[in-house]
Amino acid sequence: RKRVLITGGAGFVGSHLVDRLMMEGHEVIVVDNFFTGRKRNVEHWIGHENFELIHHDIVNPLFIEVDQIYNLASPASPPHYMHNPVKTIKTNTVGTINMLGLAKRVGARVLIASTSEVYGDPEVHPQTESYWGHVNPIGPRACYDESKRVSETLAYSYGKQENVAVRVARILTRTVLVCIATMAGWCPTSSSRHSPAKTLLSVIGIMAPKRPGTPTGASEKKRKNNIYGSGKQTRSFQYVSDLVDGLIKLQNNNYSLPVNLGNPDEHTIEEFASIIHTMVGGKSHIIHKDAMEDDPQRRKPDITRANNILGWQPLVPLQQGIKKTVEYFRRELMRSK
Amino acid sequence: RKRVLITGGAGFVGSHLVDRLMMEGHEVIVVDNFFTGRKRNVEHWIGHENFELIHHDIVNPLFIEVDQIYNLASPASPPHYMHNPVKTIKTNTVGTINMLGLAKRVGARVLIASTSEVYGDPEVHPQTESYWGHVNPIGPRACYDESKRVSETLAYSYGKQENVAVRVARILTRTVLVCIATMAGWCPTSSSRHSPAKTLLSVIGIMAPKRPGTPTGASEKKRKNNIYGSGKQTRSFQYVSDLVDGLIKLQNNNYSLPVNLGNPDEHTIEEFASIIHTMVGGKSHIIHKDAMEDDPQRRKPDITRANNILGWQPLVPLQQGIKKTVEYFRRELMRSK
Ligand SMILES: NC(=O)c1ccc[n+]([C@@H]2O[C@H](COP(=O)([O-])OP(=O)(O)OC[C@H]3O[C@@H](n4cnc5c(N)ncnc54)[C@H](O)[C@@H]3O)[C@@H](O)[C@H]2O)c1
Ligand SMILES: NC(=O)c1ccc[n+]([C@@H]2O[C@H](COP(=O)([O-])OP(=O)(O)OC[C@H]3O[C@@H](n4cnc5c(N)ncnc54)[C@H](O)[C@@H]3O)[C@@H](O)[C@H]2O)c1
Ligand SMILES: O=c1ccn([C@@H]2O[C@H](COP(=O)(O)OP(=O)(O)O)[C@@H](O)[C@H]2O)c(=O)[nH]1
Ligand SMILES: O=c1ccn([C@@H]2O[C@H](COP(=O)(O)OP(=O)(O)O)[C@@H](O)[C@H]2O)c(=O)[nH]1
Ligand SMILES: O=c1ccn([C@@H]2O[C@H](COP(=O)(O)OP(=O)(O)O)[C@@H](O)[C@H]2O)c(=O)[nH]1
Ligand SMILES: O=c1ccn([C@@H]2O[C@H](COP(=O)(O)OP(=O)(O)O)[C@@H](O)[C@H]2O)c(=O)[nH]1
Repeated sequence: RKRVLITGGAGFVGSHLVDRLMMEGHEVIVVDNFFTGRKRNVEHWIGHENFELIHHDIVNPLFIEVDQIYNLASPASPPHYMHNPVKTIKTNTVGTINMLGLAKRVGARVLIASTSEVYGDPEVHPQTESYWGHVNPIGPRACYDESKRVSETLAYSYGKQENVAVRVARILTRTVLVCIATMAGWCPTSSSRHSPAKTLLSVIGIMAPKRPGTPTGASEKKRKNNIYGSGKQTRSFQYVSDLVDGLIKLQNNNYSLPVNLGNPDEHTIEEFASIIHTMVGGKSHIIHKDAMEDDPQRRKPDITRANNILGWQPLVPLQQGIKKTVEYFRRELMRSK
Repeated sequence: RKRVLITGGAGFVGSHLVDRLMMEGHEVIVVDNFFTGRKRNVEHWIGHENFELIHHDIVNPLFIEVDQIYNLASPASPPHYMHNPVKTIKTNTVGTINMLGLAKRVGARVLIASTSEVYGDPEVHPQTESYWGHVNPIGPRACYDESKRVSETLAYSYGKQENVAVRVARILTRTVLVCIATMAGWCPTSSSRHSPAKTLLSVIGIMAPKRPGTPTGASEKKRKNNIYGSGKQTRSFQYVSDLVDGLIKLQNNNYSLPVNLGNPDEHTIEEFASIIHTMVGGKSHIIHKDAMEDDPQRRKPDITRANNILGWQPLVPLQQGIKKTVEYFRRELMRSK
């Protein structure tokens, strides 16, 4: 039984990780500033003797005693990380320094939640972990991409210099649940405070019309489904349970170089929109808009390393992930009526 | 007349910039932690009513009132920045954040000393400012390359979000004077505290043998001239007076995107060693060693932008720069006998 700190534990991935680790009987401490996360995501654990929720911003030092750290705190989608670029960078630089400093002091092991964005708009497919990436250091996504890159550099610098045990997960953008959740404009286990209009899920605003009063992102205007650029750009999606498996396996393995955690199953945004469309039903007006600046055109992770080292691969296929999620939202929507 | 803060002002580039700005009649405040810089480099100004030297580390907040900031504080050569990678990253992230926070508070303009290292081991020649670079985020140079990249990202984030006026100079590695200075293992206007063995200038240990007691870098062992790899890798060198011109022109211009400041005149390390060899005389044993990890193979800046926007180009040719420097060192060596 371990004392585990999860920064960003009130967010989408973090809260699922909390569930798993609590079920396994660990002591779990969540640190979150609630920028995109919500207390609701972990409320079912509040009061449990193994659980603690600390309202804290990792840009400030934190003094607690733990065995393991999952450093997930960071805005994660373009509208969120572009909302306050300076804060995004502070979180991934100063915040990461604080968590590595904490780990150094208490001898904890740290897993850094990095991202496939470190590959930028890749010129090599699929992307293995040894690919150096193709990132615009001063483009609109740079506040996220560059600060995540340097968070990896920091991890290995503390690793080499201070003997901190570090793990780096390069998580492949983005998980199915986030997508559909955001699409619905409201989602219990994901960030929902800011307008999701610009995220993938606004591609499909189909569920929203069925609901009466939706707090964000489901106004008549948002219901239009914009595809930025040709729609031929690809992404890969994994279901959140697969990702949580991978994170736990990586944290508890001895391997310290970066490991891609994602689904190599590549789909175009157009395909993706149409899969969900078919599944969810309803009418959507797809509108083609100008491509977003520096929008990566392809994403296809090579997960050989995760497979060899961790014996990991995604198990939930895309269609099933979407189906589960849609059902989940149907239930949530019923409940909220 | 302006109040100008120069962080890293006791270093090589900084101290030459101090000289120029003091001569122009400005108030100059130097902030330095003396990691590689030396008080000696600016001692001729100590006591002058327009000059102030503050012993301070930019990783900590600084509260002063100024009109312009040249943020040069950072270890600058591989042996220095690899000496303490964590500190290198802190300086370029937390330190840069502090200087941008200061600029935001007092409404000052900031010039960030970036580097051609943001291009990494470039796959495109020559490198224009729009090239995204080819950098290994977890390699041995990453603590410098990646933290300099994110310092640019920070600059533009504060620029856009907080209206801080920012300038970014991508300085082309490395100036002739640094080189020869380091080669001599001792140098008045450059960093000399740490072993220069691994820097370019150890390629030519020729001057050292003439001196009796040399503090660092000139032991019998160091006098051997190692060329790492084939010696066919190229670099470009500019004389420090040209660089100082460029920095001042950029700071006072309205252009805020990154500007390369360097000499497009490309030489292989071998050629460079032989030019200096011929000029300085003496015997040197060139020994070929294994290539250094991630050693950039070519460097050739495109300076069209600096030329068009600032009307700038390097004026001092390589041979003359080396000659000036050699003379300078001959004098210094005589004096110290
Ligand atoms: N979901 C994905 O597809 C994906 C892909 C690649 C990487 N990641 C990374 O995984 C991590 C989790 O992502 P997510 O999808 O769960 O996002 P999320 O927005 O749902 O969760 C992030 C959490 O971090 C918190 N947070 C943000 N800044 C903070 C700060 N300064 N101090 C404390 N807490 C802070 C937020 O409030 C939120 O609860 C992030 O680091 C993200 O970059 C996610
Ligand atoms: N000289 C070059 O060829 C070259 C090339 C590219 C970029 N640059 C950049 O130009 C700047 C100056 O380089 P230089 O050649 O004069 O190097 P230098 O080492 O001579 O000077 C750097 C100065 O910064 C000081 N410093 C370092 N960390 C500090 C900290 N945390 N707080 C306060 N002061 C600190 C050092 O003591 C030193 O005086 C650096 O930012 C460097 O990265 C230089
Ligand atoms: O238990 C701890 C130990 C350190 N830190 C922070 O981590 C940072 C980096 O730690 P490190 O040991 O590298 O820095 P140092 O304290 O040596 O400056 C410090 O600035 C602290 O603010 C923290 O938040 N909790
Ligand atoms: O309403 C939208 C939102 C996103 N996209 C595209 O969908 C892809 C995924 O976007 P997301 O914001 O989820 O994040 P990313 O994967 O780029 O980090 C990108 O190519 C976007 O341009 C789109 O076409 N319409
Ligand atoms: O005159 C100043 C103003 C700010 N800062 C530092 O600059 C950082 C970034 O400033 P910003 O305004 O972005 O941060 P905030 O104070 O809003 O957290 C702060 O952490 C301060 O430590 C400083 O050193 N001098
Ligand atoms: O004793 C030395 C020192 C450097 N170099 C090479 O000279 C070039 C310039 O090295 P420097 O350390 O000056 O810095 P860089 O330009 O790589 O930042 C690199 O290709 C080094 O491998 C060399 O061959 N022998």
